[in-house]
Amino acid sequence: MFEQANLCLVLGSDRRGHFDQAIGHWVRNALAGYTCFSVSSVDPLDGRTEQERNRRLEQAHAFVIVTPEYNHSFPAPLKTIIDAARQEWYAKPVAFVSYSGSTSGGVRAVEHLRDVFASLHAVSVREQVAVTRIHRRATDEFGNFVDLSSAEAPFRNMMRRLIWWTDVLRLGRTATQVLASA
Amino acid sequence: MFEQANLCLVLGSDRRGHFDQAIGHWVRNALAGYTCFSVSSVDPLDGRTEQERNRRLEQAHAFVIVTPEYNHSFPAPLKTIIDAARQEWYAKPVAFVSYSGSTSGGVRAVEHLRDVFASLHAVSVREQVAVTRIHRRATDEFGNFVDLSSAEAPFRNMMRRLIWWTDVLRLGRTATQVLASA
Amino acid sequence: MFEQANLCLVLGSDRRGHFDQAIGHWVRNALAGYTCFSVSSVDPLDGRTEQERNRRLEQAHAFVIVTPEYNHSFPAPLKTIIDAARQEWYAKPVAFVSYSGSTSGGVRAVEHLRDVFASLHAVSVREQVAVTRIHRRATDEFGNFVDLSSAEAPFRNMMRRLIWWTDVLRLGRTATQVLASA
Amino acid sequence: MFEQANLCLVLGSDRRGHFDQAIGHWVRNALAGYTCFSVSSVDPLDGRTEQERNRRLEQAHAFVIVTPEYNHSFPAPLKTIIDAARQEWYAKPVAFVSYSGSTSGGVRAVEHLRDVFASLHAVSVREQVAVTRIHRRATDEFGNFVDLSSAEAPFRNMMRRLIWWTDVLRLGRTATQVLASA
Repeated sequence: MFEQANLCLVLGSDRRGHFDQAIGHWVRNALAGYTCFSVSSVDPLDGRTEQERNRRLEQAHAFVIVTPEYNHSFPAPLKTIIDAARQEWYAKPVAFVSYSGSTSGGVRAVEHLRDVFASLHAVSVREQVAVTRIHRRATDEFGNFVDLSSAEAPFRNMMRRLIWWTDVLRLGRTATQVLASA
Repeated sequence: MFEQANLCLVLGSDRRGHFDQAIGHWVRNALAGYTCFSVSSVDPLDGRTEQERNRRLEQAHAFVIVTPEYNHSFPAPLKTIIDAARQEWYAKPVAFVSYSGSTSGGVRAVEHLRDVFASLHAVSVREQVAVTRIHRRATDEFGNFVDLSSAEAPFRNMMRRLIWWTDVLRLGRTATQVLASA
Repeated sequence: MFEQANLCLVLGSDRRGHFDQAIGHWVRNALAGYTCFSVSSVDPLDGRTEQERNRRLEQAHAFVIVTPEYNHSFPAPLKTIIDAARQEWYAKPVAFVSYSGSTSGGVRAVEHLRDVFASLHAVSVREQVAVTRIHRRATDEFGNFVDLSSAEAPFRNMMRRLIWWTDVLRLGRTATQVLASA
Repeated sequence: MFEQANLCLVLGSDRRGHFDQAIGHWVRNALAGYTCFSVSSVDPLDGRTEQERNRRLEQAHAFVIVTPEYNHSFPAPLKTIIDAARQEWYAKPVAFVSYSGSTSGGVRAVEHLRDVFASLHAVSVREQVAVTRIHRRATDEFGNFVDLSSAEAPFRNMMRRLIWWTDVLRLGRTATQVLASA
């Protein structure tokens, strides 16, 4: 691997106190074990300007998107963040942690996002984390999940693949600027 | 047909002075010929509250959605309007007028919306209007299109089908309340 | 309700001895409790000609599709059956029982099918049955599932809705022939 | 660039004498100008066994898929070819030439294929060729299109990007075997 890469965690929901925050908390903790990445984040509730957010996206070598599934697709605030940037996404890998109240775990939202990111020259990582029946999962006094152990193995598989894509695409972007000129 | 039905025109973009407004203007004019419908509208820029918008959606018997295609999918403000309502969409027909700068005419955004509306028990009308290469179309001093005659026949076909679905589903909703209890 | 309607069960896979057959067996048993429907079926392995299959589709007032998910979409043999017909699908309701080896239960295949059926003027029923981790479910000596009780409540909800759509669309098709002329 | 890469042209339709063949003919001619690629092909009508086809897919460093759009999605024979292989697709780039009788040019089929190929660790190239209103295009005595000049610039843009991805992913696959072990 190159020297340390930057991973930007993008949260998709703007509902304060929502599962997004709890899932984001869990992902952040899980990412702490990956010293190959420094971690930044972008969030509809972070109070940053579009320009500040895009700067974070631009500096990232890889993305993890945390998204709920609303009506079989992605939430509006996530699309706002995605559409506000452009070359910031090009030729970079995107991995997904989705969740839903149903047994689908949000995979329908992810499939729509795969189309969206393909249109932005990004690579969507196949391995994904899908948290099902999120309303039934116990949370502690801080709103964090008591137990998401079922997500641990999928998360490790996803990260293994994300690292591969991060390295390969970083190399590709370094070697040639063709995509930057698009 | 029943007595006059109400059709709600939903605009999807929040970019002021954008093509949405010009397309919306064209659709409104085209709808004037359909006396079977009274027409209301909902719009990210209309200054109405969510409650006021949902009231309009609730009163409608049919919908025409005007949507651009951003990154191969629908724009965020449209999803905000859709997700804010629920039973307001149930067992009602939805028709689409899409547009894009490319030759696709926005049909990719519509396919994602078909999934979304299926999750809301709505019926998406197959016939659709897709306005291609929108940036190349001449506009007058008011920002309206000088010529959208290529959209006229598709619009008539779409309306013919939308009327069929409006009648059938209105009858269905009248005859039974099963969906309302979902 | 009208007099008895006909429901056609469409199996999507052509892998003999496959889960499709076992799921189909389970669905057929579950359908036995619905006396409002007589049941026929169409199957890539049924040895029937395209003409014979289309005749069954034509006579049906409602459909239940059983589909696996291969590579995040529907299997080829199911698409062959769908594409071979046309007006046979118009203005009829389609419900889905999907399955997969993963935790998604095949819902991604169903979303693609919703697009396909929307293009055929059919109505896809929101409620669906999604059987997850199918490889881990015990089967008996006949290859049938020992226990699919987790699918029972979703199946009942799906059927309740399918019956509503069957009645409404049957009435609509009877009242007007507009779709038949498309 | 590396030494010469191999590009496999995959035709999706099994209708003999169909547009697929004419589009395939045009693509083959257009590819002749790209000496960085040797070209093979796979085709539902080529009479080859699944094993022979998979061998061609395995040897390819890049793919161009020619696909019609049937009922807003891809045709069954193409899905059969895709599902029969597995690691043959991993970490390779896939570009699309689609067509349809409507003004969409087949882009809806391509969006479904993007989901499918994402599930196979493949990268779908954003730039694409979409041939609209194919029934209205004049053909010569051999069934080939007299004029597809409107497709030439999109094809060049697509190939420029496909070459970038071919190089980058070839390098990635050479440097590490992690995907092969999946």
